[in-house]
Amino acid sequence: MDLKQIIRDFPDFPRPGILFRDITTILKDPAHFRFAIEQIEEQLEGIEYDLVIAPEARGIMFGAPIAARQKKGFVPARKKGKLPGEVVRKTYFLEYGLDAIEIHKDAIKPGQKVVIIDDLLATGGTAKGICDIVEELGGQVVCIVFLIELCAIKGGEILKDYDVRTVLKY
Amino acid sequence: MDLKQIIRDFPDFPRPGILFRDITTILKDPAHFRFAIEQIEEQLEGIEYDLVIAPEARGIMFGAPIAARQKKGFVPARKKGKLPGEVVRKTYFLEYGLDAIEIHKDAIKPGQKVVIIDDLLATGGTAKGICDIVEELGGQVVCIVFLIELCAIKGGEILKDYDVRTVLKY
Repeated sequence: MDLKQIIRDFPDFPRPGILFRDITTILKDPAHFRFAIEQIEEQLEGIEYDLVIAPEARGIMFGAPIAARQKKGFVPARKKGKLPGEVVRKTYFLEYGLDAIEIHKDAIKPGQKVVIIDDLLATGGTAKGICDIVEELGGQVVCIVFLIELCAIKGGEILKDYDVRTVLKY
Repeated sequence: MDLKQIIRDFPDFPRPGILFRDITTILKDPAHFRFAIEQIEEQLEGIEYDLVIAPEARGIMFGAPIAARQKKGFVPARKKGKLPGEVVRKTYFLEYGLDAIEIHKDAIKPGQKVVIIDDLLATGGTAKGICDIVEELGGQVVCIVFLIELCAIKGGEILKDYDVRTVLKY
């Protein structure tokens, strides 16, 4: 199964100059959705971890199913102001501007091993922000898996201290 | 397992007068997360359907895992401007103001049977908006399952034409 045949491209979304890779066409077909999940899980084989963290909203579409299937806890990384409890916030750069991500302070216990799952690696800013929060809370990022990597943007560089794995490269 | 013991309450979040029920404490524990998923799945036993639709972001945390486990397609209902393709948009009332929800026009084929999953039934506005979009696209909402129902708000009333099921009532 070639997921690249299923992913749709939208030029100039959400901003001029951005080529948006739309993964909703994977999700809506049960076989494609399951295949994508299994491809991400394959990257995690042999890795021991306690928690999956995924950023809203697309990261959650893959991260939550994988946490449930692998019997791990799930921690959402949310946009500013969405989590009701005490949070740690990091601001980071996206392809199109500045953004902030928050995680509940009590979501990660010191020493817990964390896997980050997201649909797409572009600048790496979101994932780096999550890594910073996890470490501030005493957790350890043992692996970061992306379904898609946009290699030209070289987002992997700010994540060079981490074990980063990607299923599809563009 | 009593999920009400796990859910945290935050008064006056995100607006004064709103008592926020925080389900992230369920998600972060593998046993609680799985139990909540199974409780929602139990409500769906015997129902035939093709797709799970869930609104961002908390609905996705339960809807995506259930779609994957049940071998169904998953369709996200997103906030305004997040989906790159042609969408149908509905505006609806929340406990705290007006909001809009969008679904890709080609996400639902005429005749497809749809289950809506969300974490919380308050006004019912989000779910009703999704029902309206599904029907405009020729789909059929066969069941709506909420993990939590806030009974005092009587959100069930605008959903009275649907098969609405809830796991926990407050």
